[in-house]
Amino acid sequence: MGNKNITIGLFGFGCVGQGLYDVLNHSQGLKATIEKICVKDKTKKRKIDANYFTYDKEEILKRDNLNVIVELIDDASEAMKIVRQAMNNGVSVVTANKKMLAENFKELYELQVKNNVALIYEGSAGGSIPIIRNLEEYYDNELLSSVKGILNGTCNYILTRMELENKDYSEVLKDAQASGFAESDPWLDVAGFDTKFKTLLLTIHAFGVVLLPDDILNTGIQNVSYDDILYAKQRGLRIKMLGVSFKSGDKFRVYCLPHFVDRDSELNNVFYEYNAVEVEGAYSCKQTFVGKGAGSHPTGSAVLSDISALTYDYKYGYKKLRKALNGNQKIEDGAKLIEYDFSIKLYIRFQNREQLNDLEILSIEEEYKSANTNYIIANVNFKSLFNIYNKPDNKLFICAV
Amino acid sequence: MGNKNITIGLFGFGCVGQGLYDVLNHSQGLKATIEKICVKDKTKKRKIDANYFTYDKEEILKRDNLNVIVELIDDASEAMKIVRQAMNNGVSVVTANKKMLAENFKELYELQVKNNVALIYEGSAGGSIPIIRNLEEYYDNELLSSVKGILNGTCNYILTRMELENKDYSEVLKDAQASGFAESDPWLDVAGFDTKFKTLLLTIHAFGVVLLPDDILNTGIQNVSYDDILYAKQRGLRIKMLGVSFKSGDKFRVYCLPHFVDRDSELNNVFYEYNAVEVEGAYSCKQTFVGKGAGSHPTGSAVLSDISALTYDYKYGYKKLRKALNGNQKIEDGAKLIEYDFSIKLYIRFQNREQLNDLEILSIEEEYKSANTNYIIANVNFKSLFNIYNKPDNKLFICAV
Repeated sequence: MGNKNITIGLFGFGCVGQGLYDVLNHSQGLKATIEKICVKDKTKKRKIDANYFTYDKEEILKRDNLNVIVELIDDASEAMKIVRQAMNNGVSVVTANKKMLAENFKELYELQVKNNVALIYEGSAGGSIPIIRNLEEYYDNELLSSVKGILNGTCNYILTRMELENKDYSEVLKDAQASGFAESDPWLDVAGFDTKFKTLLLTIHAFGVVLLPDDILNTGIQNVSYDDILYAKQRGLRIKMLGVSFKSGDKFRVYCLPHFVDRDSELNNVFYEYNAVEVEGAYSCKQTFVGKGAGSHPTGSAVLSDISALTYDYKYGYKKLRKALNGNQKIEDGAKLIEYDFSIKLYIRFQNREQLNDLEILSIEEEYKSANTNYIIANVNFKSLFNIYNKPDNKLFICAV
Repeated sequence: MGNKNITIGLFGFGCVGQGLYDVLNHSQGLKATIEKICVKDKTKKRKIDANYFTYDKEEILKRDNLNVIVELIDDASEAMKIVRQAMNNGVSVVTANKKMLAENFKELYELQVKNNVALIYEGSAGGSIPIIRNLEEYYDNELLSSVKGILNGTCNYILTRMELENKDYSEVLKDAQASGFAESDPWLDVAGFDTKFKTLLLTIHAFGVVLLPDDILNTGIQNVSYDDILYAKQRGLRIKMLGVSFKSGDKFRVYCLPHFVDRDSELNNVFYEYNAVEVEGAYSCKQTFVGKGAGSHPTGSAVLSDISALTYDYKYGYKKLRKALNGNQKIEDGAKLIEYDFSIKLYIRFQNREQLNDLEILSIEEEYKSANTNYIIANVNFKSLFNIYNKPDNKLFICAV
């Protein structure tokens, strides 16, 4: 049982930061207190005593009575500066910033080794689902073959409401923004970038393979229409935005795409802001973890669990990564382990044929045309999807069949 | 990362023992070897070298080059003798014997404290689902309100096949026995005792409350008929055998009964030998874990994960239990924390009205009579269910509504 007292310097007091504050206040037996909170906006009214707050990050980073920094701000590059400085000061860090982690993983791993401090981040993938800890601790000797899941609460919330309420994308998105389930700029969520950052982290902990965000293809739900939802519905399927990472011979396939999910799948019944992760191993077979993927208290509880783990000096062992490194200190470029040149079967809805020109279509299995909408079911060379990747003006809706 | 070499003395080489042997042989990087295996049956043909085997338990218990005993035999009282002796010798134990654990928990906890050895048992509940480890490590500071689940693969296998194949209980049970999904004496499984042992263990790790098996009511599926399956089907429900343990004010309600589960529940889509556990907390909200609950390799992989945990000297912290003990050494009788006197709404199928005499029926909401079958939906005083508990001649099928 952990006996260490934790004194926390907190960065950020938004949704998750306030959730952590609540959860920590109601937790019994955990010796952890928030000493100081660094925020940006001086004009914002805060729910708690003004003495907690500072606007100067150095005031937290230079204090020597803090033993944990909890980083919960939006800005990934500012977060990286804070985390780097804290770790170099020998202070352990808890974060939920998947973008920062995904973009800077190599440096963050090296900072852990060099400074012998912990960096833990259960809240960064799967919200309240303890997936990273389980990959690290429970499946450490299991021959895993696949990790995939519904990793973005915003996408799942939008897709669920479109289907259950027979509504179109733009209408549901507006509602979602009004009720806090989508950001005012939803691009990172709906275009699959958030899913990708999380998939990248799961790939590290499942397989010991470290990728850069640009190594992983993502297309999202930003062009989904009610026609697509209906297509799925009529066939007893549901559209789910999935991040997938699995072994394919000696290599791996890692990508983030909307998928048609059938009725028997555990993922089919995961609604609204819930997330789910499926882990497949040679011996444990298929395991599914379902839980709230977003929100103040669920993510706050994941952060709390990380803080609690620090009371007994927990660190990720990075067992799969260290096995892959085989004694080397330098993390190699994982992209060479990724397969890009393969055929993938896709449902593609388009307005006019020219929109398909960027894709290397190998064969068309079905084709549907009408005044309102057209789609094909086609086998496409996967790597050609990078031609349309991250282009907001691309109007295709692509869904893995 | 664990660096300790593990040398194992294994008791039992049945389904799970052989599964462990396979899994261990294919695991990479784990420094664990089975040195000797104690088995009972001298005539049985074994798949591996005869030198592995002994028929004398002392030959394993008295060796001093073994640092872990893995106990995987059927007989709970014989298992307890082995485990007690091993722990008193200062050797850590991995087991999957839920009956032994449930019947002897107090002594087994005291043996851990007294001898400062580990006793870990992830394979004992939820098969391959890492539920105990998660309750222990991840939800250690979360205010949990409920843990419930499909915990017995045999019951779920029988109920699934009855529903999907429109078959009656006896037919499916025979099939299940022939294909190894049910024991030749299925009573412990189908009457809910196995579910109860597991529910008892989950209650310890979720709430720190230690009960005896007889403190927990269980009725099972031994009297389920296709009429019941049909009743559920027509209403969009499924019958699932559940173990439940949840807070009710200052007390707890803990019992194991068949339940009608509705379509939106994560538990509805859990089929065949799969198990599922739902954990609800104040902040993490509802989390569901789904995975194979039985079988040689899934349970073997859970045992392997325990062995792996011993390479870095893992022990259960029993955080909730120790908080409940509040410094005392002696575990108190948890039964006084359990609520028995409350009204529970049940579907009860019966042949004649006298069969209901043992139950304290508070009110009847629906009543159905026909030449073939009769049922009532009634509010029943929960404690009166103990009047029919563990009576093989009781012919009622009872299902929580």
